[in-house]
Amino acid sequence: MSSPDAQNAIVLLSGGLDSATALAMARGQGLHCHALSIDYGQRHRAELDAARAVASQLGAAAHTIVPLDLRLIGGSALTDPGIAVPEAPTDGIPVTYVPARNTLLLALALGLAEVAGAGRIVIGVNALDYSGYPDCRPAFIDAFQQLAQVASKAGVEGHAPGIDAPLIHLSKAEIIRRGNDLGVDYSLTVSCYQADHQGRACGRCDSCRLRAQGFRAAGLPDPTRYV
Amino acid sequence: MSSPDAQNAIVLLSGGLDSATALAMARGQGLHCHALSIDYGQRHRAELDAARAVASQLGAAAHTIVPLDLRLIGGSALTDPGIAVPEAPTDGIPVTYVPARNTLLLALALGLAEVAGAGRIVIGVNALDYSGYPDCRPAFIDAFQQLAQVASKAGVEGHAPGIDAPLIHLSKAEIIRRGNDLGVDYSLTVSCYQADHQGRACGRCDSCRLRAQGFRAAGLPDPTRYV
Repeated sequence: MSSPDAQNAIVLLSGGLDSATALAMARGQGLHCHALSIDYGQRHRAELDAARAVASQLGAAAHTIVPLDLRLIGGSALTDPGIAVPEAPTDGIPVTYVPARNTLLLALALGLAEVAGAGRIVIGVNALDYSGYPDCRPAFIDAFQQLAQVASKAGVEGHAPGIDAPLIHLSKAEIIRRGNDLGVDYSLTVSCYQADHQGRACGRCDSCRLRAQGFRAAGLPDPTRYV
Repeated sequence: MSSPDAQNAIVLLSGGLDSATALAMARGQGLHCHALSIDYGQRHRAELDAARAVASQLGAAAHTIVPLDLRLIGGSALTDPGIAVPEAPTDGIPVTYVPARNTLLLALALGLAEVAGAGRIVIGVNALDYSGYPDCRPAFIDAFQQLAQVASKAGVEGHAPGIDAPLIHLSKAEIIRRGNDLGVDYSLTVSCYQADHQGRACGRCDSCRLRAQGFRAAGLPDPTRYV
């Protein structure tokens, strides 16, 4: 294992709008980016194709897709076909929350960072225009940063990777403006929780609503392909 | 998702001596135990057969094996066939360390606990007679407990699962004596890092040495099958 390099980042890439923007921001800082996606059995499989296209468009140096079938755990509308994706706002944490997903994503990134000698992990979580998931908030990122300092060999040696969440305090409109300035082709991204196999969006789920509002508020054309 | 129950535990089960003992201790307390193993592409595949046998012998109510191919990440003698398992003690953290493995195990357990309504997660890590892995120490368990309080829906609602590491301060001999008293059939367990397909141990790796010393120190017959 090489020693970690702050110019070398693992970037979690779902294929959605936020993580594409986070990758563009990291690339804009001149970082060498290794994209990491998880095929977790998500209902919206098209987001993995989107992740491949985005990694390529934005010049990721590598892209690893790890299969981890969270349907074995279930408990979410995204991994259990028996739970419908809500098409109107709901109270509390919605059923599209996937238990422990971001903890798993960061854990995989932590392992890959150690092996790839990456000094940073970038995750595109957002705690402003979001669905209320617990693992998208600053307290979660801070707790994972603390964990990284004791969980890994690099951490024990005093150089745990930094966990960067560059979107965490931005509105969806600000995220879109930043990405637009950095040349993100949002037509490649898939946000919809129930996108069809061609990546076309439903226009009705939480994720579609937040995305459409974001383009409107940013005053930019929305390139989303709808069913 | 049901509300978490302190009598309901997710028990991480590798198929080795330690996690078998941790399961036996949880069963001895009368807990309803859902065993969780990961098929991570480990060199010593026989440990998964051992995990199945142990779950059955000790009365786990369920056993989930999640495939998560950590060979995609590599960086360890246990997941990269190009890195040999050391057969003599080495300095520092040995190459059998699997980057972020216990973080991943606990993250999966956190997700399963949320869906199964389990109020406890049991992990058989040990920081006394161990190989020096960072993610086997009390500081790691404490940091994951903090993370669980903010990472999950149950945590946000004020009832994150407790992370129990009942072996963490025990010697290998003490672990074996406890397990023996609780009826663990250690002949079913596989500790060797390079066990053959029938689960027969090499007798030379770190894990074999710690295990054999443990049985000697406990004054109990060693049922390990060697090659």
